[in-house]
Amino acid sequence: MEAFTVHKVTAEIYALVQNLYAHQTQALDRGDFKRYVETFTEDAVFFHSPDAPPARTRAGILAAAQAHAHAHKDDQVTKRHYYNQIALSPLSDGSVRATLYALVVRTRRGEKVPEIWPSCLLEDVLTIENDVVLTRSRHISYD
Amino acid sequence: MEAFTVHKVTAEIYALVQNLYAHQTQALDRGDFKRYVETFTEDAVFFHSPDAPPARTRAGILAAAQAHAHAHKDDQVTKRHYYNQIALSPLSDGSVRATLYALVVRTRRGEKVPEIWPSCLLEDVLTIENDVVLTRSRHISYD
Amino acid sequence: MEAFTVHKVTAEIYALVQNLYAHQTQALDRGDFKRYVETFTEDAVFFHSPDAPPARTRAGILAAAQAHAHAHKDDQVTKRHYYNQIALSPLSDGSVRATLYALVVRTRRGEKVPEIWPSCLLEDVLTIENDVVLTRSRHISYD
Repeated sequence: MEAFTVHKVTAEIYALVQNLYAHQTQALDRGDFKRYVETFTEDAVFFHSPDAPPARTRAGILAAAQAHAHAHKDDQVTKRHYYNQIALSPLSDGSVRATLYALVVRTRRGEKVPEIWPSCLLEDVLTIENDVVLTRSRHISYD
Repeated sequence: MEAFTVHKVTAEIYALVQNLYAHQTQALDRGDFKRYVETFTEDAVFFHSPDAPPARTRAGILAAAQAHAHAHKDDQVTKRHYYNQIALSPLSDGSVRATLYALVVRTRRGEKVPEIWPSCLLEDVLTIENDVVLTRSRHISYD
Repeated sequence: MEAFTVHKVTAEIYALVQNLYAHQTQALDRGDFKRYVETFTEDAVFFHSPDAPPARTRAGILAAAQAHAHAHKDDQVTKRHYYNQIALSPLSDGSVRATLYALVVRTRRGEKVPEIWPSCLLEDVLTIENDVVLTRSRHISYD
């Protein structure tokens, strides 16, 4: 059995990715969709679900996020996206594959105990250029 | 649209902050309040809730933590604070703004399924000096 | 009161540890036990519970994981291990003590809301050699 090696992704990249995801989820959760889509590349592809076509480009992801927010505007729920267990593997073209877990914590106005669902697996490809990390593609699978 | 940039906080600082929060929450959860308050600056200000005056200085934060523990001493609940989605932004004076999510996982003695509440937003200012990161201010908002 | 210091573990090590745990939990959760045990040292010791003898060596940990999976093969539950609040402290022999929190998120087939249990404390000793981090011992306590 070969030794398990995870040493090819530097600490610099690991921290950039974590900070990216933190800013990305917080922008999404506070409804700042313009800032949110700036964490994707211009030509990003986002597979929201296995049964629907993906959103494409920043403009397409922005439109999808706005449509989703509009459909849920009366929900009176604060959502917090949690991304965890970020496993990074370098790809041969200099980008990085990120496989991670996600949960959404939902607090209804006036209640203190949140609902936590769904549980998802996210498979991203991230580009790194001049110390800037952006999401180039995302594929979400629901447990 | 400008590119999203998160490259100004180094990996070194990101790791120091994560390690700080891990030690801080674990000290709090095991009731080691002396160690807990050592993760704050001497002159720290801690806004626990929007309706109450903040705790001020290490001594004040220590007194508040001890009073809270005393009020809950018969609860028979193990608490675990989870801090996630740590978004860091450098400030012009060399300190760092940290915006993060928090959950408390509460396991009652004799039960296996924890309750998870509340869901919070934490807004901290952190000082960094000689590779030591400390919490200078904290503002908690409850979802 | 002395200043709180957490500066002895480098960012490089902190990132390696996080990436290790992400790969370790994902391998476990997808049932890739061969990959899973490669994240432990050959001579690792794994204390699953206070009442049972530990699993020893990669072969022993592999056998225990396979037996556990076999016993639960009809559960129709997707499990996701979340490891958080990773507090690292260097040990004098060059290894690192990691104290962290763990939760298991369990989604039953056909349901969208997961159960989240148990809440645990993990106490690991990690070896670091040539930029490879491996788990040498693990002690789990259940809340």
